[in-house]
Amino acid sequence: MKPSHIEHIGIAVSSLDEVIPYYEQLLGQKCYSIEEVADQKVKTAFFKVGQTKIELLEPTSPESTIAKWLEKNPRGGVHHIAFNVDGVQVALDECAAANIQLIDTKPRKGAEGLNIAFLHPKSTHGVLTELCEQPK
Amino acid sequence: MKPSHIEHIGIAVSSLDEVIPYYEQLLGQKCYSIEEVADQKVKTAFFKVGQTKIELLEPTSPESTIAKWLEKNPRGGVHHIAFNVDGVQVALDECAAANIQLIDTKPRKGAEGLNIAFLHPKSTHGVLTELCEQPK
Repeated sequence: MKPSHIEHIGIAVSSLDEVIPYYEQLLGQKCYSIEEVADQKVKTAFFKVGQTKIELLEPTSPESTIAKWLEKNPRGGVHHIAFNVDGVQVALDECAAANIQLIDTKPRKGAEGLNIAFLHPKSTHGVLTELCEQPK
Repeated sequence: MKPSHIEHIGIAVSSLDEVIPYYEQLLGQKCYSIEEVADQKVKTAFFKVGQTKIELLEPTSPESTIAKWLEKNPRGGVHHIAFNVDGVQVALDECAAANIQLIDTKPRKGAEGLNIAFLHPKSTHGVLTELCEQPK
């Protein structure tokens, strides 16, 4: 596995309305998309900086994993890093063979239609790590 | 200010020796540089993924800000995100004018000879944020 680039950085926020203006100032651009991902119980807002998206994540339910993360980190912060790979399934199999624990053993659908899978934080030294690919 | 790309993601680790093999596996490459930054009391290890470096940070002293961060986050994790800008001083002045608090009001030297400056976490919604540029 050799990821080509960092596809996005997921940042947990309590309120998109509060945080979007900060990133619009910092990044010198408007948020280009807001999308609700029902499966993950989040509303997302996207920016693009070079090859990498900044994905702000606001929980839409107290059961969202982002809501639970924000209980421990009320200021918000970096929730995960997503690496773009050529094939998520092959990459997952390589990780498993290298004794890296997985959350997802098969890719599933994420925001913007990407195929995504998460590695288990037990294996990733504190950085929640996602692998993703554009669907073929 | 319009950053061109994410220059690096700084990841705090207790031990480079323990964590480098994981990133070598994940990123399909060898760590290309290890550098001690005496000023920040850290030893850094670098990888490159597309436009962005992964910068692992191990404290070299209990007084290092990374050591203090690891006391609160013993598993390690994402410590900061660094955006590449065309001119750090101009970007800092723009941030100040937009009421974004600064840690550094002037650029200073960081790892790999970059000119760097940090924004104050009070203003950045939980994401420690660095601006940097290649020296002219």
